[in-house]
Amino acid sequence: MARRSLALSKVYGLLEPGPVVLLSTARAGKANLMTLSWHTMMEFEPPLVGCVVSDRNHSFRLLKATRECVINIPTADLAEKVVGCGNTTGADIDKFTVFGLTPVPAALVGAPLIAECFANLECRVADTRMVASYGFFVLEVVRAWLDRAVVRPRTIHHLGHGNFMTAGERIKLRSKMK
Amino acid sequence: MARRSLALSKVYGLLEPGPVVLLSTARAGKANLMTLSWHTMMEFEPPLVGCVVSDRNHSFRLLKATRECVINIPTADLAEKVVGCGNTTGADIDKFTVFGLTPVPAALVGAPLIAECFANLECRVADTRMVASYGFFVLEVVRAWLDRAVVRPRTIHHLGHGNFMTAGERIKLRSKMK
Repeated sequence: MARRSLALSKVYGLLEPGPVVLLSTARAGKANLMTLSWHTMMEFEPPLVGCVVSDRNHSFRLLKATRECVINIPTADLAEKVVGCGNTTGADIDKFTVFGLTPVPAALVGAPLIAECFANLECRVADTRMVASYGFFVLEVVRAWLDRAVVRPRTIHHLGHGNFMTAGERIKLRSKMK
Repeated sequence: MARRSLALSKVYGLLEPGPVVLLSTARAGKANLMTLSWHTMMEFEPPLVGCVVSDRNHSFRLLKATRECVINIPTADLAEKVVGCGNTTGADIDKFTVFGLTPVPAALVGAPLIAECFANLECRVADTRMVASYGFFVLEVVRAWLDRAVVRPRTIHHLGHGNFMTAGERIKLRSKMK
């Protein structure tokens, strides 16, 4: 296992391409997971991430109550588990057990990292102004982890109704952009 | 040209995978463009899109003043133009002319569609509560266009510093998710 701390200034490069992520939360020793594609970077450093967690999700209550979560980024080999997490509710099942995912204690938050994901971002809720209107939480990433053994991670990107595209060829262009 | 109106209920499938987009704005007969990756869906229908437009961008002033824009989605063949738009400012140059992009009048907003992009989403600003804090605009998509000749569009996804991944292989799984 080559999971190491990642500089917070590099977090945006993980989320900016738009991968499907697994959001983990926990309360009273019970952890939950949800599949999520509606997220965006909002600031480079400290990294702010906006994401929509509908109040129809079990995770909504956990996130609202604890104000902590972990954003975990899966690769294509986990696609079936990711869809499984999206098709079920943590109100009824323990998703870690059912889908064979391994919770690992985080450093700064109560929610667990998912061992099988190549990147894990420990987050605290930073702004709840748009939670009532849209379920939109602004999160601050307080600690980031990256499995450096994973080169060119084949992230998955949701096109709707269980159709995904996976990260393909790369292009490098001269750019002044971050 | 096979550009046709797209049902608003299908818009999320275009943005959810996280492509780099070109945001067009216009004021007093002068159009501008910016490259943008920090966006997320916020509602299915009517489609709401949140995006960050920094007040350091020329487009910020146009978007704030007119409350209208178009989100245009490019494919990999436009990658150099997309980076060019990200490296320059509309305060100094006319990006449509410099990068050889073709403005097409929109149906409902003053900003133009970009003819070379396979999808175009006409938007009006719906919520400015987080503009002062984060440059975060909530947009409502009021009209959507799709070039149906483009099958499996090879969208581009920014990894930072001019490194992009392009849309690769597809996966189809059984899902109850939208």
